[in-house]
Amino acid sequence: MKSLLILKIGGKVIEEEPLLDEALTIFAQQEGPKILIHGGGKRASQVSKQLGIPVQMVNGRRVTDAATLEVAVMVYAGWANKLIVAKLQGLGKNAIGLCGADANTILSHQRPFMGVDYGFAGDVDVVNITTIETLLQGNLVPVFCAITHNGKGQLLNTNADTIATQLATALSSQYNVQLNFCFEKPGVLRNPMDDNSVIPTLSAAAYRQFQTEGVITEGMLPKLDNAFEALQNGVHEVRIGDVASIVNKTGTLLEI
Amino acid sequence: MKSLLILKIGGKVIEEEPLLDEALTIFAQQEGPKILIHGGGKRASQVSKQLGIPVQMVNGRRVTDAATLEVAVMVYAGWANKLIVAKLQGLGKNAIGLCGADANTILSHQRPFMGVDYGFAGDVDVVNITTIETLLQGNLVPVFCAITHNGKGQLLNTNADTIATQLATALSSQYNVQLNFCFEKPGVLRNPMDDNSVIPTLSAAAYRQFQTEGVITEGMLPKLDNAFEALQNGVHEVRIGDVASIVNKTGTLLEI
Repeated sequence: MKSLLILKIGGKVIEEEPLLDEALTIFAQQEGPKILIHGGGKRASQVSKQLGIPVQMVNGRRVTDAATLEVAVMVYAGWANKLIVAKLQGLGKNAIGLCGADANTILSHQRPFMGVDYGFAGDVDVVNITTIETLLQGNLVPVFCAITHNGKGQLLNTNADTIATQLATALSSQYNVQLNFCFEKPGVLRNPMDDNSVIPTLSAAAYRQFQTEGVITEGMLPKLDNAFEALQNGVHEVRIGDVASIVNKTGTLLEI
Repeated sequence: MKSLLILKIGGKVIEEEPLLDEALTIFAQQEGPKILIHGGGKRASQVSKQLGIPVQMVNGRRVTDAATLEVAVMVYAGWANKLIVAKLQGLGKNAIGLCGADANTILSHQRPFMGVDYGFAGDVDVVNITTIETLLQGNLVPVFCAITHNGKGQLLNTNADTIATQLATALSSQYNVQLNFCFEKPGVLRNPMDDNSVIPTLSAAAYRQFQTEGVITEGMLPKLDNAFEALQNGVHEVRIGDVASIVNKTGTLLEI
């Protein structure tokens, strides 16, 4: 099977333009078919605040009322997505920006009320790979933001790590997928305060052990849960680290 | 040659959701390949005001500084574009939202300083139809907003009527293009205050005459200049009117 690089960028890499430029330059230099997924960083919260829309977070997830959804779509599918596409075009890559509603690529359903009403937050049901494959075959580089839809006209705000995992899993039927989660840290750290404490290889068993011991901190848990899920569902390789980890094969490599 | 419907919606049709829903329903019912182009209405100015960014217009065109560009991209390429795509998906049409940077479809250059600095305003140089044709052949419905790029990483704000004209002209090499400019009026009016004064057929000669007599008002001039340009450059049919004009072949039909 042909290889496919799927890179998810988040955290400071999307918030700070020099880091973003570095990530996009390295991404653009990689040979072969590739897909980028991005979060929106703190910009959505900033814009919400400026527009007087209260930012509500529950369990690390944004509560998305109608006004917050509009801001999320404006910032993620609008500014962040098109800025990245324009920058990749400037680097000679024929990027095409997509949300899950575009070409019906990612269908989700509104998260049901379970003690918390997350509003217009979407949990992914289906990834339709037909159009994505056509784009890849045409040497296009899809750039996904974390907005999806329910197929009935409603846009939904979705977690970017989840989007990356779901895309990687769905495309594993056709490609050897290398999934990289890229942020400002060199990998999963034993000690969050020490960038030299990267765990080079993390097995599912060790992950459970680290969780029990409280070594791996709360912010990393949804990302790692997603990443292990991808690996278990046929994704060829999953790596977590900074921009350099794509090239140097450093960072944290996950193992089932 | 195969027929292609290109519909540009603007004015109140994009600002008022019932009118938008009506337009999208009628558009979705049309058989065969089709493309939608939309403006952003007054929402960009509203968001700019809320964010404390001064709105500057010169000769009916927005002066686009860096902050205004971000808002334009957020509102046009983000919210308006993805809302329309999600609604069309809900109507059973496989829409895909694009700006000119996506798949390098529309290249423009920053408008040079000629007494007025319009900032990040783009004038179109090239429409690349390869990817657009691939999408149409795959039964996808491209939905364009009026954001373009210069190919070097810079997004640019562009007039939506111009985008429609340029797309229609470029695709006329492959399709019999029917270009409809759709807004809240039933056509080009002899008397702007009287909706029953639609000019059913407007020739280029009559247009010049009406201009001289001051019958056709200032707001319509750039739209009509664009429309006649399209007709002169090979677009099969150009019509201006309200949503019903698409179905009923009413409104104002242009003639060279």
